[in-house]
Amino acid sequence: MIKVAGQYVSKFGELWDKDIKDLFAESLYGVLQNSNFEINQIDAIFVANMNAGTYSGQNHLNALVAEIAGVNIPSYRVESACASGGMAINLAYLSIQSGQYNNVLVIGAEKMTDNKVGDVTKGLATAGDEEFEGFYGVTFPSLYAMIARSYLHNYNLKSDILGLPSIKNHFHASLNPNAQFQNTINLEQVNNSSLVSDPLRLLHCSPITDGAAAIILTNDKSNKSNVEFVSSSLAQDTLSLHNREELHYFKSTRIATQKALQSANISISDVSVAEVHDCFSIAELVAYEDLGLAKPGEAYKLLENGDTYLDGKIPVNPSGGLKGCGHPVGATGIKQVAELYQQISGQAGKRQIQKNLAYGLAHNVGGSGATCSINILKNLN
Amino acid sequence: MIKVAGQYVSKFGELWDKDIKDLFAESLYGVLQNSNFEINQIDAIFVANMNAGTYSGQNHLNALVAEIAGVNIPSYRVESACASGGMAINLAYLSIQSGQYNNVLVIGAEKMTDNKVGDVTKGLATAGDEEFEGFYGVTFPSLYAMIARSYLHNYNLKSDILGLPSIKNHFHASLNPNAQFQNTINLEQVNNSSLVSDPLRLLHCSPITDGAAAIILTNDKSNKSNVEFVSSSLAQDTLSLHNREELHYFKSTRIATQKALQSANISISDVSVAEVHDCFSIAELVAYEDLGLAKPGEAYKLLENGDTYLDGKIPVNPSGGLKGCGHPVGATGIKQVAELYQQISGQAGKRQIQKNLAYGLAHNVGGSGATCSINILKNLN
Repeated sequence: MIKVAGQYVSKFGELWDKDIKDLFAESLYGVLQNSNFEINQIDAIFVANMNAGTYSGQNHLNALVAEIAGVNIPSYRVESACASGGMAINLAYLSIQSGQYNNVLVIGAEKMTDNKVGDVTKGLATAGDEEFEGFYGVTFPSLYAMIARSYLHNYNLKSDILGLPSIKNHFHASLNPNAQFQNTINLEQVNNSSLVSDPLRLLHCSPITDGAAAIILTNDKSNKSNVEFVSSSLAQDTLSLHNREELHYFKSTRIATQKALQSANISISDVSVAEVHDCFSIAELVAYEDLGLAKPGEAYKLLENGDTYLDGKIPVNPSGGLKGCGHPVGATGIKQVAELYQQISGQAGKRQIQKNLAYGLAHNVGGSGATCSINILKNLN
Repeated sequence: MIKVAGQYVSKFGELWDKDIKDLFAESLYGVLQNSNFEINQIDAIFVANMNAGTYSGQNHLNALVAEIAGVNIPSYRVESACASGGMAINLAYLSIQSGQYNNVLVIGAEKMTDNKVGDVTKGLATAGDEEFEGFYGVTFPSLYAMIARSYLHNYNLKSDILGLPSIKNHFHASLNPNAQFQNTINLEQVNNSSLVSDPLRLLHCSPITDGAAAIILTNDKSNKSNVEFVSSSLAQDTLSLHNREELHYFKSTRIATQKALQSANISISDVSVAEVHDCFSIAELVAYEDLGLAKPGEAYKLLENGDTYLDGKIPVNPSGGLKGCGHPVGATGIKQVAELYQQISGQAGKRQIQKNLAYGLAHNVGGSGATCSINILKNLN
């Protein structure tokens, strides 16, 4: 049995006094302290980051983190665009299953704000297909705008529904002291916010964020955590949007979800709480349907009914999600699992879900759906 | 038992007609054909690359390769500077040991020549410590020049010995049709080549190279390969040179070598052939000593005696090494294992070592020794 032994999530936001090293260091010491681990008990480190090579002139982050930790143990750097965190966790899980390691640290960070916004956007565009998308000036808001248009057209829906995930996620974020945004928003504010790429407006888009997150996975049976790590899956779809079967769903999410649920031997209705990848609000709607939480074209009803709010049937993004909590790319997939751990172990403070949680699911996407990582936690209590 | 089922190495050099996608595609189809595998028999892909994010504006290379292959299986991108390839192989090995996958493709590529030399050098400098090295203009030739100075001073040796690995590796490369350089060189040419960073001259330095390499690992007992993959290890040292105990050896190589030999249950004298990381000629000398092939300060004697030539006691870098064959960063660690596979399976053509090979060892270094990967192959015949 593999458990999540503990977590740490830094403050997410514009952290002008912290560089990429500071973020890793804070998160490293934080997770060791929170998990009651000494560094010399750790057998390997998995580091998730997308763009420090361009944003901070620093690659080889596995060595950077090992140096901060003062250890010579194997340290790996994993990159899969915005799914870097989920992928690092997947590999950490496999590495314990391999029998090579017992206690593994997974740590992710992204320092985005020291760059001009244009350079940040350009860096993020390297998650798409450079030859057929980036080269022609297509950025991620545009890619997700095309997905949103296809979705709204396909189900004959109004763009108002795009505001619903943002409104919920800002509300959840207002209860999370680490979240980048502490303010609630309403539909009028969303619809009056500036247009980024039609139909996506500013308040449909996750922000540029600095932040870090870490978890420790262990196979130590005596570990007192009540949170089992039961399943992890990955799937790919085409890097480029123009090669997809359709634009209004993500095949990668569908495949990864099926595999992860099967491996955990549960169905989606057993999941009590989820963190999903709402880089743009359309992505949360599409995720509901690909995960099997809603029928095609009906995702918005879960939000209208309050089902995915903290006190709803299946709370989604209690952390505030990428929109409310922030999206420091390399940290995001790890923050998701850290949030589920906090919820399942009853340490989520003001945003604690007030019911027994059986399973938690983290859904982390890279690019415009080219990579999907699903990680599932189980409550042992 | 895990085997190397087959390999592919592209032509290394200035490949002006190929971009990063072409390199991956060629190598993907090549390794499948050489190994008699169909793509649908592959369970997962590990992609090694350092700098496509800056050199080609393309990150998320795991998705890129999955799209080229036309598959939805898990695909991982691993980065550890110049040790990206060795690290990807290590993870592929662990992933099979985990029980999750049976047949795994490991593929690496780097497209370096479409950029200005200064931009390539700057990209490579992200393998060092940006805060204390890169920021102040320290590039990799300078870092290895400091290592060379420390080494020569510590053992009271003349800089002439720095030419010996280059001369051997150009000779080996002249027998390798895929090598970037097909010409032999002599000591006079080395010592008359332009000074890059004293005492390192141009012919002490590996070149800027485009290229790709791939291998397939399998746990299929019926696979006919005679090459077992027996051991893989990683170790870290500080990212920054100024934090090291000493500059004239690499602690990471020493630790990784001990672990890998122990895991394979052999000693260094059982190794019949090695590919070592000669990014600069000093690195090959230091590697001999850290691997245990030579006593401290006596590495040059192996070269003077011809011991590490193709027909010597322990041939090193039969491919031509990084100096002669070329150094397309993400491909290098995979090319090393591909070369050992070719030697052990008797497919190395004009550079075939003419004796029975028991074990082959690949030594792949990231940064100025911050990461070391050791992979060991065994001849089952």
